[in-house]
Amino acid sequence: MNESLLLQLEIDQLNAAYAAALDERRFDAWPAFFLEEGCYTVQARENFDRGLPLALMALESRGMMKDRVYGITQTIYHGPYYTRHVLSPAQLLPADGARIRAQTHYAVFRTKPGDASEVYNVGRYIDEFARTGAGLKLASRLCVYDSEMILNSLIYPI
Amino acid sequence: MNESLLLQLEIDQLNAAYAAALDERRFDAWPAFFLEEGCYTVQARENFDRGLPLALMALESRGMMKDRVYGITQTIYHGPYYTRHVLSPAQLLPADGARIRAQTHYAVFRTKPGDASEVYNVGRYIDEFARTGAGLKLASRLCVYDSEMILNSLIYPI
Amino acid sequence: MNESLLLQLEIDQLNAAYAAALDERRFDAWPAFFLEEGCYTVQARENFDRGLPLALMALESRGMMKDRVYGITQTIYHGPYYTRHVLSPAQLLPADGARIRAQTHYAVFRTKPGDASEVYNVGRYIDEFARTGAGLKLASRLCVYDSEMILNSLIYPI
Repeated sequence: MNESLLLQLEIDQLNAAYAAALDERRFDAWPAFFLEEGCYTVQARENFDRGLPLALMALESRGMMKDRVYGITQTIYHGPYYTRHVLSPAQLLPADGARIRAQTHYAVFRTKPGDASEVYNVGRYIDEFARTGAGLKLASRLCVYDSEMILNSLIYPI
Repeated sequence: MNESLLLQLEIDQLNAAYAAALDERRFDAWPAFFLEEGCYTVQARENFDRGLPLALMALESRGMMKDRVYGITQTIYHGPYYTRHVLSPAQLLPADGARIRAQTHYAVFRTKPGDASEVYNVGRYIDEFARTGAGLKLASRLCVYDSEMILNSLIYPI
Repeated sequence: MNESLLLQLEIDQLNAAYAAALDERRFDAWPAFFLEEGCYTVQARENFDRGLPLALMALESRGMMKDRVYGITQTIYHGPYYTRHVLSPAQLLPADGARIRAQTHYAVFRTKPGDASEVYNVGRYIDEFARTGAGLKLASRLCVYDSEMILNSLIYPI
């Protein structure tokens, strides 16, 4: 039991650090939460539930994530907004071989300059983790969001 | 101290599994989070604070919960929507004899097809747990919600 | 590692008790979460990020907090509303000497009588804790909120 204790807390710490990096706009720190060959996918619940492959975003390596960060910070034209992630404690799922599995419900709030904060994107992370010399890393994070209707476009990672 | 550690994590895991079952629409799994004679009550804060008995829903056994699930899934006519629970870490309360007590703040977001996600119901769970051969079970979950004005009617469990 | 485990859980318990005291309107219990000379500050993210000193509220002792509670409960004229805090698990930050440091993302929802619940204030707590004979206490809680536009004025503590 003590091992699963440790694991839950480790995952909660990783999730909190991940959320803090994004919300504090330290986007360069984001790919480092993943393995070099880690996957980051954002998919509407409707497609996920039906087993359809279409995803809003599918990045299959840290390199692709770095490209995305470059796009966000340097090239994509978009109105500025703040994000704020609020996360439930992670739920441990049965391990798949060496892969640690968990899922976490999230709510992301958006604040545009001069506006009130609003619900932006809610859903769950479905995660696989690997233990590395540098600590726990995401082998895969699949963000399944509830609303097909995303307020404007989704610029920053979820 | 280590015991209360374990307990907090166990309750957080139970809460996460409970939320996942509801949000993933595995409603048949819902009654099994309770004791056979477990209670599930949903009450407006206004009534709770005044000690008034009126509750929006009061189910006093797994059997009644199963009936409710049957109603939700088979007979009640209602517009479809997704729910998403986001929960705080549970707060342990002083035990009442053998009863483990805790409370947890929750926010439930609702997403209707083609719409943005919105705040649906916020409040707290006031819980009593019993330890059984099959793990921790809810002897009683009282959902005290803040808003008397519930968006449409409350169909799915909170 | 076990020490940081304990600490995370202790902080989550403190945060949950803090949120419960506020949301249940037990405002008199609020200053006791702080050291006698504890600080409570509420600041817009815009100012925080720029290193500007202007804060919406800055209380520098329990005495000032008690004054504030007196104001809230006895003298300030305002429309009534409920609050509901939903908090992420705390993120431990590197300690600063004897000071335990952590930050926690929060969402506060507001419910006015007869209205639906709405997003009120989202942001993060940036905290310093001290260990005392009476348990963990806040030496400083800085609430950095995302929206400059606060729905009505901010009456109750965040």
